[in-house]
Amino acid sequence: MQLRDIGEDALIERLVALVPHDPSPWAGPGDDCAVIDDGHGALRLLKTDALVENVHFTPDAEPHRVGWKAVARVISDFAAMGGKPEHFLITLALPPTLPVAWVEEFYRGIGTCLRKFGGYLAGGETSSVPIGSAAVISIAATGKVERDEWVLRSTARAGDAILVTGKLGGSLAGKHLDFTPRAEQAQWLVKHFKPTAMMDLSDGLAKDLPRLAKASGLGFMLEKSAIPITPGCSLQQALGDGEDFELLITTRPESLAELMESWARHFPELGLTQIGTMTSAGEGGELSGGWDHFKTLGN
Amino acid sequence: MQLRDIGEDALIERLVALVPHDPSPWAGPGDDCAVIDDGHGALRLLKTDALVENVHFTPDAEPHRVGWKAVARVISDFAAMGGKPEHFLITLALPPTLPVAWVEEFYRGIGTCLRKFGGYLAGGETSSVPIGSAAVISIAATGKVERDEWVLRSTARAGDAILVTGKLGGSLAGKHLDFTPRAEQAQWLVKHFKPTAMMDLSDGLAKDLPRLAKASGLGFMLEKSAIPITPGCSLQQALGDGEDFELLITTRPESLAELMESWARHFPELGLTQIGTMTSAGEGGELSGGWDHFKTLGN
Repeated sequence: MQLRDIGEDALIERLVALVPHDPSPWAGPGDDCAVIDDGHGALRLLKTDALVENVHFTPDAEPHRVGWKAVARVISDFAAMGGKPEHFLITLALPPTLPVAWVEEFYRGIGTCLRKFGGYLAGGETSSVPIGSAAVISIAATGKVERDEWVLRSTARAGDAILVTGKLGGSLAGKHLDFTPRAEQAQWLVKHFKPTAMMDLSDGLAKDLPRLAKASGLGFMLEKSAIPITPGCSLQQALGDGEDFELLITTRPESLAELMESWARHFPELGLTQIGTMTSAGEGGELSGGWDHFKTLGN
Repeated sequence: MQLRDIGEDALIERLVALVPHDPSPWAGPGDDCAVIDDGHGALRLLKTDALVENVHFTPDAEPHRVGWKAVARVISDFAAMGGKPEHFLITLALPPTLPVAWVEEFYRGIGTCLRKFGGYLAGGETSSVPIGSAAVISIAATGKVERDEWVLRSTARAGDAILVTGKLGGSLAGKHLDFTPRAEQAQWLVKHFKPTAMMDLSDGLAKDLPRLAKASGLGFMLEKSAIPITPGCSLQQALGDGEDFELLITTRPESLAELMESWARHFPELGLTQIGTMTSAGEGGELSGGWDHFKTLGN
């Protein structure tokens, strides 16, 4: 059996059984980030992410936009748990023929994003890949989240409203390289209308909503006609393109009207749209599609 | 200018100037790991590392040995600062045609090493690389070090004895895949004979000793005839092969005799050898060679 036959989620389930885990119930694989409880102050977040040439960016993409994307993806994951970034480690596996100027512009993009959203470079590693191999950029970062602002993807409740920020679909037209992580909105949410569950949309609603539902032990009823779609895109693209980096939120129905009204005043330029309702497990609809690394590329 | 024209150390110097750093004087790029002071308890260590197919391992290497190596390298870095591993994040960028069994065996190797030396899997990320591209494995980890056991590479003093553990050279014959990180020895050293400076030998003595000297603002006098060489290897291999993962230690000359005597009782099967003396900057000898990622592969 090859990786393309199994898919990303099933692979991860098999692998995590093979290695020791932290006995702390808050740590471990499965959510947007790992959560570590040191026993004092805020909780610590750990996250790793990778960008691969010809998968996440093309060789002709402007390198400062690739650098922005590399760290913005991680900032988006921290935001989706209610947290903020702290220290970044940058690992580069690059062909020796790459221009030094490319790497410098890439780092400038990282710097621009870190200055805007917070976070420091703490270290890194550079390695070569054989000439002809794809460049691989791996970002590891630590973050923190206040104990009372921490949001998981596994804590939605039946009857919760399902919301998304912004518009979905069409990321490949350029947005995937210069999206704005919804860090400000996520911080506002956890302080004023703490969601019951939250994650960021990285692999497309069709993949990520079922993940949130499965993690919460629930089903979902999706109102496809309500999905906010990027102009020029189809519903299929909104469901499956991936790399939207919008927030997927569930919230108690009784606070929905006040949330929507307050959101519109605070973020008049960014939509917040109800697209469905969480149901008990086994009820609701189904969704398939979205981005699967090994299956999408391997077939 | 391409990466192969500039080399790894010069590249890193140019890049770190482009991004924000932690204002804390203990954090930041340059040593084996980044050191973070949370203000309470032990110091936190952060480290990232990468293994590239056809650079750090061949496609026919047994995957559980590759997994062992992937985390043992990081454990060796923590050990060299006097620290211990805590949480690991594993990032895999793999071709979709790779057998699932390969990845499972690789994770078993990680598990074996973590059970032996401590540390937990906290999370990870899998991505695909285009078919034909080299697989890239990136490991990020957090560790900790007690405040009074922390050792840098930049704090050697002129007149210090230079020591290495074990024997150098010949890693490619197999040792690079199943070396033992000198974690036990490093812990013993920082508790009983705290070195003035320490690092692990990853790119070969010819590259790493000048790095330690430069970081400390010193020179060095190397006694080449004293270097402990792996049987069957040449002096050139001992200096330049890299991936020895032995400890490079500096220590005050007045405690040397007692250290050597006590070491021999505690670690009778592992050599500890004086190979030279730290000098003031500008004095001493020179060394060149060793492994440079971009130059060695790119020419």
